[in-house]
Amino acid sequence: MSSPRRTIAALLALSLATPSLGQSASDNVDPFIGTGGEGHTFPGAVAPFGMVQLSPDTDTSHVIRDSYKWAAGYRYTDPTIQGFSHTHFSGAGHSDLGDFLVMPAVGEAVALEPGDPAKPGSGYRSRFDHKDEVAKPGYYAVTLSDPGVRAEMTAGTRIGVHRYAFPAGKAAHLVIDLRSSLYNYPGKILWSSLRLAPDGTLSGARETRGWAPGRKLYFAMRFSAPLRDHAFVSTEKDVPYKGFQGPGRGSEALAEKSGRGLVARLDFGALTAPLEVKVAISSVDEAGAVANLDSEPGDFDAVCAKTRAAWDKALGMLAIDAPAPMKTSVATALYHTLLAPSVAGDADGRYRGPDDQVHQAKDFTFRSTFSLWDTFRAEHPLLTLVQPEKTNSDIVRSLLASRRYSPDGILPVWQFQGRETWTMIGYHAVPVIADAYLKGVGGFDAREALEAMVASASYAPYGGLGDYMKLGYVAIDREPEAASKTVEYAYDDWTIARMARAMGRKDIADTFDKRAANWRNSFDAKTGFVRARKSDGAFRVPFDPTAINYGSDYTEGNAWQYSWFVPQDQAGLVQAMGGDKASVAKLDAMFDYDNSKLDYSHAEDIAGLIGQYIHGNEPSHHVAYLYNYAGAPWRTQARLTQIVASQYKPTPDGLSGNDDLGQMSAWLVFTALGFYPVTPGSLEYVIGRPFVNRAALALPGGKTFTIIAEGLDDAHPYVGSVSLNGRPLARGFIRHGEIMAGGELRFVMQAGPNKAWATAPDNRPFSSSTVRQ
Amino acid sequence: MSSPRRTIAALLALSLATPSLGQSASDNVDPFIGTGGEGHTFPGAVAPFGMVQLSPDTDTSHVIRDSYKWAAGYRYTDPTIQGFSHTHFSGAGHSDLGDFLVMPAVGEAVALEPGDPAKPGSGYRSRFDHKDEVAKPGYYAVTLSDPGVRAEMTAGTRIGVHRYAFPAGKAAHLVIDLRSSLYNYPGKILWSSLRLAPDGTLSGARETRGWAPGRKLYFAMRFSAPLRDHAFVSTEKDVPYKGFQGPGRGSEALAEKSGRGLVARLDFGALTAPLEVKVAISSVDEAGAVANLDSEPGDFDAVCAKTRAAWDKALGMLAIDAPAPMKTSVATALYHTLLAPSVAGDADGRYRGPDDQVHQAKDFTFRSTFSLWDTFRAEHPLLTLVQPEKTNSDIVRSLLASRRYSPDGILPVWQFQGRETWTMIGYHAVPVIADAYLKGVGGFDAREALEAMVASASYAPYGGLGDYMKLGYVAIDREPEAASKTVEYAYDDWTIARMARAMGRKDIADTFDKRAANWRNSFDAKTGFVRARKSDGAFRVPFDPTAINYGSDYTEGNAWQYSWFVPQDQAGLVQAMGGDKASVAKLDAMFDYDNSKLDYSHAEDIAGLIGQYIHGNEPSHHVAYLYNYAGAPWRTQARLTQIVASQYKPTPDGLSGNDDLGQMSAWLVFTALGFYPVTPGSLEYVIGRPFVNRAALALPGGKTFTIIAEGLDDAHPYVGSVSLNGRPLARGFIRHGEIMAGGELRFVMQAGPNKAWATAPDNRPFSSSTVRQ
Repeated sequence: MSSPRRTIAALLALSLATPSLGQSASDNVDPFIGTGGEGHTFPGAVAPFGMVQLSPDTDTSHVIRDSYKWAAGYRYTDPTIQGFSHTHFSGAGHSDLGDFLVMPAVGEAVALEPGDPAKPGSGYRSRFDHKDEVAKPGYYAVTLSDPGVRAEMTAGTRIGVHRYAFPAGKAAHLVIDLRSSLYNYPGKILWSSLRLAPDGTLSGARETRGWAPGRKLYFAMRFSAPLRDHAFVSTEKDVPYKGFQGPGRGSEALAEKSGRGLVARLDFGALTAPLEVKVAISSVDEAGAVANLDSEPGDFDAVCAKTRAAWDKALGMLAIDAPAPMKTSVATALYHTLLAPSVAGDADGRYRGPDDQVHQAKDFTFRSTFSLWDTFRAEHPLLTLVQPEKTNSDIVRSLLASRRYSPDGILPVWQFQGRETWTMIGYHAVPVIADAYLKGVGGFDAREALEAMVASASYAPYGGLGDYMKLGYVAIDREPEAASKTVEYAYDDWTIARMARAMGRKDIADTFDKRAANWRNSFDAKTGFVRARKSDGAFRVPFDPTAINYGSDYTEGNAWQYSWFVPQDQAGLVQAMGGDKASVAKLDAMFDYDNSKLDYSHAEDIAGLIGQYIHGNEPSHHVAYLYNYAGAPWRTQARLTQIVASQYKPTPDGLSGNDDLGQMSAWLVFTALGFYPVTPGSLEYVIGRPFVNRAALALPGGKTFTIIAEGLDDAHPYVGSVSLNGRPLARGFIRHGEIMAGGELRFVMQAGPNKAWATAPDNRPFSSSTVRQ
Repeated sequence: MSSPRRTIAALLALSLATPSLGQSASDNVDPFIGTGGEGHTFPGAVAPFGMVQLSPDTDTSHVIRDSYKWAAGYRYTDPTIQGFSHTHFSGAGHSDLGDFLVMPAVGEAVALEPGDPAKPGSGYRSRFDHKDEVAKPGYYAVTLSDPGVRAEMTAGTRIGVHRYAFPAGKAAHLVIDLRSSLYNYPGKILWSSLRLAPDGTLSGARETRGWAPGRKLYFAMRFSAPLRDHAFVSTEKDVPYKGFQGPGRGSEALAEKSGRGLVARLDFGALTAPLEVKVAISSVDEAGAVANLDSEPGDFDAVCAKTRAAWDKALGMLAIDAPAPMKTSVATALYHTLLAPSVAGDADGRYRGPDDQVHQAKDFTFRSTFSLWDTFRAEHPLLTLVQPEKTNSDIVRSLLASRRYSPDGILPVWQFQGRETWTMIGYHAVPVIADAYLKGVGGFDAREALEAMVASASYAPYGGLGDYMKLGYVAIDREPEAASKTVEYAYDDWTIARMARAMGRKDIADTFDKRAANWRNSFDAKTGFVRARKSDGAFRVPFDPTAINYGSDYTEGNAWQYSWFVPQDQAGLVQAMGGDKASVAKLDAMFDYDNSKLDYSHAEDIAGLIGQYIHGNEPSHHVAYLYNYAGAPWRTQARLTQIVASQYKPTPDGLSGNDDLGQMSAWLVFTALGFYPVTPGSLEYVIGRPFVNRAALALPGGKTFTIIAEGLDDAHPYVGSVSLNGRPLARGFIRHGEIMAGGELRFVMQAGPNKAWATAPDNRPFSSSTVRQ
């Protein structure tokens, strides 16, 4: 199914004005971007879409809401590192993971508690200095100054490898702390265990009640030096009944231990060579972890080189040329889009499904970490461009496999490691599948897919769908966030209709095309806002379009953001808003809103504000492109200039909001190229303005799609004209097929706006309320 | 490997003086025996060695030590039944289980809490009357008077079937309470889940921190009537973080729920026929439970009939004739010996091992519930007589499989559902395997077995074995219960030597024969007691031979009981005690000890006292037979008369101590037949006195071994003479081979003792300190 592609490296050397000779694609990436501020990314080592994301955790002591800042384990401003754990989310809007923390220790007395960051030496954590830190795709290194240990990390698909250089002549130890976890709280560890096999393999398990309650994860760990001694210590207190505590005294010396508070001390004696620790994880069982460990042979350097090559290949699919800061921003953004949906199944194909049971994947790799409410927008559309068909096919097959084993019979909502978290709203696996299908991604059963999509859109107990199907909208008196749900369901429904029609299923297409118009049931023409209605039909009052509250009429947003969410009929929305002029005015009012008196500090993920435009969260992401629908593409271009300048910097605090498993980054990658998928499922991209001088996308069959921005610089931020393969392009959008055919999209940039280009109704994206077929 | 046997039913009709015509073997069994007092048996439905033991629980509200009386869920004196759960131990000396409690409910308002037994109607529990109760092998029935429901239970090997006759016209419900557990305490439920499949199968899982911490169990349940509605309710309170609670409101209607406090309400509407509920369990996973469910087809009546036939066959292997009370006692005892080691692996051969991982059994059925400290004595020797070779072979193979996957590399100590509990002392899987091997049980790899036995006897971290191997005894200053451990290890060692010698492994045999003499290192000639020694060699003082305390010098006993534990050299012990006369005097002193001033109420399992002889616990079990070794077999006969009369009654409180998974009962079966395996591994049985008029043991190859007690009645309790196959038997023991050859053992009973029979040194069991080869 997948077509081999040539990496763009060779092409680049020939075709780009300023080829990056001597550098590989990985060198443009700065994994520290987003590790400060609100980005919630991590700097550690990971392979493309790797199951293991091995990264330093600077502080896991905070509980519940306080821990949100440490969602990815690492905060750039922290002075100490607590250890290195094997699982992290890249910019998730909630958190969990941080599994199986490893920390080196030196000398005779080994602390088994992390200690206080403010009191160096009070525990096993260590100070560190950013000047000693290195982070590249697939590689992370730091010097732990307290034990004096140089620590390096690399990762394969299902493995992580640690390398610790201990000070000479001193006893070397590792602390494995199974109590440590991200987004921690008392009682999170349901159970854990440690086991030492006769061959020296350490394995274990942990079951947690976190974001995905009842989540099971297993590990297996091997060491390059023989283990001299060990202690498995249970630190749990106040347990009414612990059972019998093992045979005789000194049970810490046994080969096993289980409990809710476990920490291991491993003793290696004085070492003459760095200690390598190779770790695999599995959601299936310990045998799966051991098999995963065996499936990727090689030592630290071998694994690191292999992963580096994989990154060079993956990043090389989209070569860009731009001034250094923008090049770093975009390359890092592309890197961040290639971390999820990550591999979640074992090397032997087994995986844990949403029913918490183990299943066997046949001919595909099971993937999970589906942040679908975020990623259906631009992350998945980007993957259909920059990743082989196999990746996208596996994503769809994983969604379908998850639905097959869903107790509720529906597609994933927000899933990781195969486990449903019920986070956010909508059934946005639906547009992901429809978009992939309509773009020709194969390798899955389209009939099963359509059936799964219809089932997911018809499950009455889910999020007010009973009312939605009956009334045409979700009723706010019976279901929270009804306004957001209504408009998002309607868009998802439209993608079902699109796919059904392409499959010749007119019955389904007609039904869901009708449902796609349900956004109108939530649109209040009087106020010009999408609003929540009660079951008696009345809009809920009082109404404050600036209010943001949990469980309110909207989901992580308010009427300002949500009133623009009609991807399936943005042209219809422009009409409903009162036409071009009124729509442009309203868009301007949104961006120019004086927010100095607003306080959204109570609401998670409300960051990156430009008036009422909130770039740090997803509902706003397509809004800047909507001027195009109202005949004012130059206004889109101006807003994009404003957003990119204020929301993305190549620094640790350079992301204005959670990266959301690549969605924030995918927005930048698309926007930098000059177009954006406002409506996944439409096969069209709305043209904005480019931010890179040149880009080349490697396509199947050895083809290339090149984007050139002639004359681009800060003084020339507007699109003067556009040509496709040498012919002028009068319309404000390009088609997916035009990209996939290969060729050249050339922008001629200019200092001021071209107010004529792409303004005619026929040249606008979605110029009628029915999408072009 | 297994040889077909004819059941004894046909033989009986021909050969017994008073054949039990018209009755099947099952009819002699009274499962209520032991359900009161200290027996800890249960009256519910179970197939021979069944994985499911489906039985009523009368009260699971007691916590920790208070719950010991409810160790098997049911107490005969309780006025209410809380529900029916699927797993129970038969007379265990500790407790756990009670998994997946089901209770019928009627009407509109369904209580989801069990309520107060003192307040009828305060919850879902119900009053009941013993006159409405029926218990037979494989069948249990009761009328639940509060809802007015007739409840019947039956069980197959891996399934249980409930049948509930609801009152006409009223709404029928079931409550499934995953919070209910035996030996409960706060925090015991680590996690649980419920899932409803589209085909109506309810499945679920529970992980508990009980006797075996981290124990996972799964179930699948199907109903004979369609499920109309359901609610999955989480009652857990004060959880800092619960994750997202499912899509929208009313998540109780979803098809799944997980948490630490789950209860389900299932609604069937008004029913016109009894509701059948078929349940399977699995230690592996839910798919395993579903497959187990499918592996035993048939409705309630079909399963009940099949299990009844299985019981008739199993019980029919040993036909007995005796007055009704003794017949009931012995038949019920035999029934109780056929419940464990129970089937623990799935129908497809998968099982969960002591490493908590899933493994595949090849060509054998994985069994667990090994109460080895109890059952190595008489339970396993009995199974080698009354069960097919396959049963005994499977037991050995299960022990070896468990050792193969033991993190510590040793054989099970006290294991259930594949999980080690580290309860009691010794490595008594060793004598079980040795005894089976020496008796010719095949089907396992003897070399692997011997290696496992040696490894288990050589694991230094276990119970002071490091000191034992160095010093020749366990040192009490470094390990509790050192006196008991020393003498039990020494016996276990002797059985290794026996098996090694039979296999031609002289090296191992010599080593362990030497270790077998280690009992002498703990024997204090001065006091005539086995005592605990310190690492400096001195016996610990102060010394009180009547003291019983946890963690003291002895295990659930004192010097009086433990000083007789030298099964491998009882003749040597008699000599060490000062010869025949001194030994008889000391035995008499033990039985005749004035215990009126002793208070052992602080110690668990100290029940059934006759002086310092404690029949309710195992260390005493062989002691009455020891007069034979001192030339006074008639004293053994008198003591047996005394013990049987005082310790066994065919009533609910008829067992003086925990049945201990068949050991208490196996003692009675052997003793009733007239002989007892004082020394498993010796291939000899010490002759006592019979308590049945006639017995017939069906043997492989269609042979029969018949025991006849001529003239037996209460007035004739002594053995006058013994003949084997018509020839006088002068010795006080018989050989295993003599039984297995088939034939007739005939006792002639008389009013007074025959003080001459079997007293000559050569006619005594173990007449030298080296066992006969």
